[in-house]
Amino acid sequence: MLLNGKLVCYPSPVTTQLQPRWLDEDQQRIWRSFLNGVARINERLEAELRPFGLDLGEYEILVHLSESPDRSLRMSDLAGRVRQSRSRLTHTVARMESKGLVTRMACPSDRRGVIAAMTTHGHQLLVQAAPAHVESVRRVLVDPVGPEDFEALGRAMAAVVGVTD
Amino acid sequence: MLLNGKLVCYPSPVTTQLQPRWLDEDQQRIWRSFLNGVARINERLEAELRPFGLDLGEYEILVHLSESPDRSLRMSDLAGRVRQSRSRLTHTVARMESKGLVTRMACPSDRRGVIAAMTTHGHQLLVQAAPAHVESVRRVLVDPVGPEDFEALGRAMAAVVGVTD
Repeated sequence: MLLNGKLVCYPSPVTTQLQPRWLDEDQQRIWRSFLNGVARINERLEAELRPFGLDLGEYEILVHLSESPDRSLRMSDLAGRVRQSRSRLTHTVARMESKGLVTRMACPSDRRGVIAAMTTHGHQLLVQAAPAHVESVRRVLVDPVGPEDFEALGRAMAAVVGVTD
Repeated sequence: MLLNGKLVCYPSPVTTQLQPRWLDEDQQRIWRSFLNGVARINERLEAELRPFGLDLGEYEILVHLSESPDRSLRMSDLAGRVRQSRSRLTHTVARMESKGLVTRMACPSDRRGVIAAMTTHGHQLLVQAAPAHVESVRRVLVDPVGPEDFEALGRAMAAVVGVTD
């Protein structure tokens, strides 16, 4: 077979590496828009949570705890839900504990397990921050994007999650 | 006017806060898909750049330098392009300098300005990493999403960028 005028006898991983499937101009533009858009959303949401003394990672932890029975979760389950590494989560939860938002306790059913539980103060802070946060999500993403492209965004991200599972 | 059966005389910011525009179930699902998808894309791209000794932020800096005249940019321009704060960028560029990927020099036209320039080694590393990186972007996002939803994703993110400019 001929590839760029050179005779290629054995299509192999090496051949594939020599011919990367570069993004075309439109794909490149969309990919950069995606990187930009994600960065803008993060910046805006972080900025609008700051008055509550929270960052996005902390907010998400509060949301997941608030949705769990007894407002508590094993650290290993929490790590999966908020997609943080165990070491990063330990760091974040320690910081939240020092702010009085969560407490950690030994897991009764597993001596090595640790449970993170939301405090009343943590719950109150989430209740205070949630309306502003949801308003930020609407203003930065839901409203400007419009319903059809927002649906498509959901399908796109579900496809990404599907392929990385 | 009546709101939830209560007489509201003065629609005010307080009234608005009492009635947050919560996301409906579909919007909530899409928003969480978005958070998940973005996290998966980041994890995958980071993991696949790691063998080259690069993280995503460093890779992006190399791309922007490679596209600039003399493969160099003022730090302030670079910060805008890679959407990093000046302090974070300074930190990242210092790390890249210690790895021999970039050098920093005084800006000839502005005594307080600093220019970051790509080294030959930095350029070689980008050339080595780019095929694998673009393959990662395809596998994690472009291919699974499909052309129509990918276009919609581009429109959605352009709308986000537009509203946050």
